[in-house]
Amino acid sequence: MAKEKKLVQSITSRDEDFAQWYTDVVREAKLCDYSGVKGCLNYLPNGYALWENIQADLDRRFKETGVENVYLPVLIPESLLQKEKDHIEGFAPEVAWVTHGGEEPLQERFCIRPTSETLFCDVWSKTVQSYRDLPKVWNQWCSVLRWEKTTRPFLRSREFLWQEGHTIHATYEEAEERTKQMWEVYKNFVEEDLAIPVVAGRKTESEKFAGAQDTYTIEALMHDGQALQSATSHFFGNAFPDAFNIKYADKNNELHSVYETSWGLSTRIIGAIIMVHGDDSGLVLPPRIAPVQTRVIPIAQHKEGVLDKAGELLDALRSAGYRAKIDDSEKSPGWKFSEQEMLGIPTRIEIGPKDIENGQVVVVRRDTREKIVVAINEIGTKLGEILESIQKDLYAKAKVFLDEHISSATTLDEMKDAVQNKKGFVKAMWCGEETCEEEIKVRAGGVTSRCIPMEEEHLSDVCVCCGKPAKHMVYWGRAY
Amino acid sequence: MAKEKKLVQSITSRDEDFAQWYTDVVREAKLCDYSGVKGCLNYLPNGYALWENIQADLDRRFKETGVENVYLPVLIPESLLQKEKDHIEGFAPEVAWVTHGGEEPLQERFCIRPTSETLFCDVWSKTVQSYRDLPKVWNQWCSVLRWEKTTRPFLRSREFLWQEGHTIHATYEEAEERTKQMWEVYKNFVEEDLAIPVVAGRKTESEKFAGAQDTYTIEALMHDGQALQSATSHFFGNAFPDAFNIKYADKNNELHSVYETSWGLSTRIIGAIIMVHGDDSGLVLPPRIAPVQTRVIPIAQHKEGVLDKAGELLDALRSAGYRAKIDDSEKSPGWKFSEQEMLGIPTRIEIGPKDIENGQVVVVRRDTREKIVVAINEIGTKLGEILESIQKDLYAKAKVFLDEHISSATTLDEMKDAVQNKKGFVKAMWCGEETCEEEIKVRAGGVTSRCIPMEEEHLSDVCVCCGKPAKHMVYWGRAY
Repeated sequence: MAKEKKLVQSITSRDEDFAQWYTDVVREAKLCDYSGVKGCLNYLPNGYALWENIQADLDRRFKETGVENVYLPVLIPESLLQKEKDHIEGFAPEVAWVTHGGEEPLQERFCIRPTSETLFCDVWSKTVQSYRDLPKVWNQWCSVLRWEKTTRPFLRSREFLWQEGHTIHATYEEAEERTKQMWEVYKNFVEEDLAIPVVAGRKTESEKFAGAQDTYTIEALMHDGQALQSATSHFFGNAFPDAFNIKYADKNNELHSVYETSWGLSTRIIGAIIMVHGDDSGLVLPPRIAPVQTRVIPIAQHKEGVLDKAGELLDALRSAGYRAKIDDSEKSPGWKFSEQEMLGIPTRIEIGPKDIENGQVVVVRRDTREKIVVAINEIGTKLGEILESIQKDLYAKAKVFLDEHISSATTLDEMKDAVQNKKGFVKAMWCGEETCEEEIKVRAGGVTSRCIPMEEEHLSDVCVCCGKPAKHMVYWGRAY
Repeated sequence: MAKEKKLVQSITSRDEDFAQWYTDVVREAKLCDYSGVKGCLNYLPNGYALWENIQADLDRRFKETGVENVYLPVLIPESLLQKEKDHIEGFAPEVAWVTHGGEEPLQERFCIRPTSETLFCDVWSKTVQSYRDLPKVWNQWCSVLRWEKTTRPFLRSREFLWQEGHTIHATYEEAEERTKQMWEVYKNFVEEDLAIPVVAGRKTESEKFAGAQDTYTIEALMHDGQALQSATSHFFGNAFPDAFNIKYADKNNELHSVYETSWGLSTRIIGAIIMVHGDDSGLVLPPRIAPVQTRVIPIAQHKEGVLDKAGELLDALRSAGYRAKIDDSEKSPGWKFSEQEMLGIPTRIEIGPKDIENGQVVVVRRDTREKIVVAINEIGTKLGEILESIQKDLYAKAKVFLDEHISSATTLDEMKDAVQNKKGFVKAMWCGEETCEEEIKVRAGGVTSRCIPMEEEHLSDVCVCCGKPAKHMVYWGRAY
């Protein structure tokens, strides 16, 4: 057999060129590729399976809080998009327009949804009448389209997959509580299932969603020190639903405005999984959302009994509820190890003639490469413990990295220095003025305000930029 | 309390006006409604939950056969759509065209996918090289858009939800086998999970999918005697992939064509569930895919202990794995019964002071209205038996109806008579000519050929229309 080139040789080193490493991993792990439509992705089986597991876990968490799923149209009439001023200003430059149906020109243009606040409000304006109709706590899983100029796999593409939750409530308090509740759901999901620690808080005025009164965000830190906005939850107050004239009658038959929220998480998060956990051998997937949790690799598989035993092992693992596969192809064990590592499969189980003789298998952890000898009759329980350890250790490692990459600054020079040399987030005080936000961006190495945490520290009395009294402590950072 | 109007009073009788009954049920059960975009539906929580359960069951069946899910773009460049002649002719008149991205006109128009054969072939033409890359057995769950003139909820709308499976194979035989395998999967799913019996077979030349060599279909019979094409599986041979220049090298490095299939089932099937099982009180849902399998309705709920016991019952049912809800609203029991029936929830469980005293509950079947007294400590197992009986009985009832509505004809007059008076399918011999198919349609009350079964009966030697030698026995019928 000709010498096989290991997959790992086809990817750039992570520390050498992070952007190229990212592109290489996406390609070699066959997660997605560009389609013939500029800026639109093909989500391939390995990438889509990851999204399916994300969907399943997140959807379960949503439904536990009373969310109902719906599906509204892919098209939005231009007149509907225009109903809320800030919203149309935010989205009009980046939507795709349908102008012909079949052979005929349309009387009114439709855009492909860039987000669906207007559609949800339109349904409710026609169906919500009484307090008995409230709250509405709806969500849809769909694709949206924004005509971006520059695109990168998962991080920014014209079409992407996401969920968008939309809710209306009888009171301000209830809507605000729902906004925060979903923000918590995202935080717990990302930390527990994806093993990604985050910094959480409110967005500043300039970074808010178009039309929202408040935007809550969770921000993860990538291995190159840049932040990635991972999910957002928006509180609209009643400006948005008022624009659609959604009113409800209370028990005394008096009409009131409703209060709205929306919240979303997209396939961008797959980019975060890659850039937080991945290494020079490829992907490293958290066991809870890994499409395959273990791959059985027979050693010396041509020897009598090896493939039989490996097959029995696979069956046992599947019966025990693991997502397990086998690689019994003609490729060499070395190549198989390399591929399993590239795909980020959390463990492999090596089983050869010696192992069979000794009634054991060798479990190799993807994250640490630790080899663990396990009695074959104990693998059903041991593998679960190993996967749980990997899940915890991935989080712990990422948390250490995050904590080590949060600096404090009281001057713009300190900020710039931290951004360039320490990387990651910089905490600094801010006067609340947009002009300062702009100036900080220019003078401190391209950082933007990422969020204002719920519990602000008091780092200084004055704004890091203008020296006027500080209103907030802000997490700043370069971001994807 | 003012007298409540029962929900059932708001729907038309099924035998009086079937079309109006259908529309009324869809509206009162809150399955879907029309959006602000002409011909596009809002899938509301009750309707979408049904689709989610259909997806879950069908997706599991797909994956058991080795299907992998992917997601390809919503847009197709015009040049790509045009690559296969029959395909573009079939779809060009009914696609929506995107001509502008943001503020700028596009250099090439994109259509919103009406189906995605061209996109799948485009991916494969770039990535498939060797026999090692085959087969590809991919599927996507998505929405598609066809610019229909007339629309009806679920049955025909511009945008609809579906799954589209696409596969390529090294050999003719393997591809043909996959076409039939997926057709079997559909048949089993529809019969076992949806309790809908079907007539299955091949489509005639004129009824085939645009570009396919063979189309296999399953056809269900609605209560009004009209057929509904419920799922199709297409065999393309290699004409389609050849148009995209997809070739693979075999072990000897010789290039070969690949063989393609595609297969789909859409939200149309929800229309079939409504029109096969529904009655004058509303929906009747098969327990296996009912979003809610039982609704607990407390009787005299203001009396001490009733709501507590009903709550305990609900918890016990949920712990036992049932999809259970409670209606503890202020409405009267009569209104609650009426709503549960309208929604098609397979059972309700009535629990009042007397029942609590006697340690029992009353289970009422939606399909037969039979009341079954069950000891409260046995409900966990008994309910499962009752739901299983309902599932079986719904199928059996529909099967009797189907069998009673299949006639045979050897003349066009007999055909016309059967269509008008007996309703349903008519079996008749056919010469294989399209002209006769057209004439039969005109002269026998608007029937179309529904399918040629795998095992044809010999009803006569000659075509029912022209008297020339018969080639096939065909199921004919009026269809949605």
